[in-house]
Amino acid sequence: MKTLIVYAHPEPRSLNGSLKDLAVATLEKAGHEVRVSDLYAMRWKAVVDAGDFGPSASSPLKVAADSGRAFDTGTLTPDVLAEQEKLLWADMIIFQFPMWWYTMPAILKGWVDRVFTYHFAYGVGEHSDVKYGERFGEGTLAGRRALLSVTVGGPESHYAERGINGPIDDLLFPIQHGILYYPGIEVLPPFVLYGSDRVTDEDFPDIAKAWEQRLLTLESTEPIAFRRQNFGDYEIPSLHLKEGLEPPGRSGFRLHVRP
Amino acid sequence: MKTLIVYAHPEPRSLNGSLKDLAVATLEKAGHEVRVSDLYAMRWKAVVDAGDFGPSASSPLKVAADSGRAFDTGTLTPDVLAEQEKLLWADMIIFQFPMWWYTMPAILKGWVDRVFTYHFAYGVGEHSDVKYGERFGEGTLAGRRALLSVTVGGPESHYAERGINGPIDDLLFPIQHGILYYPGIEVLPPFVLYGSDRVTDEDFPDIAKAWEQRLLTLESTEPIAFRRQNFGDYEIPSLHLKEGLEPPGRSGFRLHVRP
Repeated sequence: MKTLIVYAHPEPRSLNGSLKDLAVATLEKAGHEVRVSDLYAMRWKAVVDAGDFGPSASSPLKVAADSGRAFDTGTLTPDVLAEQEKLLWADMIIFQFPMWWYTMPAILKGWVDRVFTYHFAYGVGEHSDVKYGERFGEGTLAGRRALLSVTVGGPESHYAERGINGPIDDLLFPIQHGILYYPGIEVLPPFVLYGSDRVTDEDFPDIAKAWEQRLLTLESTEPIAFRRQNFGDYEIPSLHLKEGLEPPGRSGFRLHVRP
Repeated sequence: MKTLIVYAHPEPRSLNGSLKDLAVATLEKAGHEVRVSDLYAMRWKAVVDAGDFGPSASSPLKVAADSGRAFDTGTLTPDVLAEQEKLLWADMIIFQFPMWWYTMPAILKGWVDRVFTYHFAYGVGEHSDVKYGERFGEGTLAGRRALLSVTVGGPESHYAERGINGPIDDLLFPIQHGILYYPGIEVLPPFVLYGSDRVTDEDFPDIAKAWEQRLLTLESTEPIAFRRQNFGDYEIPSLHLKEGLEPPGRSGFRLHVRP
């Protein structure tokens, strides 16, 4: 298994840093190839701008169109090209990050904004009466799997079905479905560590054991059963889920997971 | 009305730039004071790191604790202090941004990550049997209102109740409830412009008219009825919504809006 770890924390000696180090050690010991994009250590530029597109930047700047032309003509900035190449190399992608304000840190969002260019991650495939591009189950990154490993400051109850923050699956849906499944990546259930602000050195062995267990069973773990876009579940082009496909009472983001 | 506009787009001649310019002109003409944080023009640093906390940065770095100590002792970096001061000055905050990958651009997430420090936006107030800090309806920014003005590339149907991307209200919930309502800001229903990739110069007058109408009625618009945390709707400290408060069949994020 070729694994890319995309890691976003400013402190190497943090819980996130330890989980990343443990993932590298565990996977390599099990015979897998591992590459790491340590965004803080790389001083990753978080902000999309004209500099990303080289001679393909138009004036006025058109972010989507210009990124697609830069992708097509090989004029994307080298740091973005390197990350696209890593994604194409990998068959497993692990994202290690702290949840800040209910989603990923800005540096990781900037990795998505810059690396997931038009014609690479979106704007792929033809539109017809039966197909609305290649996305949500198809796309450039099909055949790959991903896993979010997330530390969360608050306690699990706040992220439960009736918890004030909303259910963790719904908070992660825009990432797991909207960012990862969109270009074709299958997404494994996340590894979520709650109460991370209160983790002590004494807690770490149990956490490490649980994380190792997830890491060593990645290949046999079933992905989340998101519905594929172009295979009969949705009206085209409205992309409404057809009536009657969901269990009674299900609504919101969960409509898009097969029962 | 003192309005702060936080604006995140790299191209001044973009649709987002035009909507921001129109907001400034419309509000000033109506006699309101307006300040703008143009994040790209300011070359806003998007990434939290030790540099934000000056002498309060510890080693190893503790993002939450260090940001709180830096806030308490006045040693936050000047760019962050300036934004906190603008938030305290404002009684209305408008966020103008394109939806990229189902949420805000990295530069704006980095504004949240860096400006919403511990002891300013979270970690405020006491915990007791009847109170879990001052948040979700209370907090440093109580008494202020906010509005998201968002451009969305895809068509409205994809963001409808059964649309493949999920309902727009659910996609914006982590921002509107998790980021804005958390430190006490009341949130007005968003201004969402769909199909923004296909907007032409001929479309703009109608868009401008709709936007002006929203801008000129900000003071009379009812905010989203998010439930307050400490006023009886939630068990403390689990922060589970008490049973029976919601209409039958309601689940997910919508539990946290009063019927």
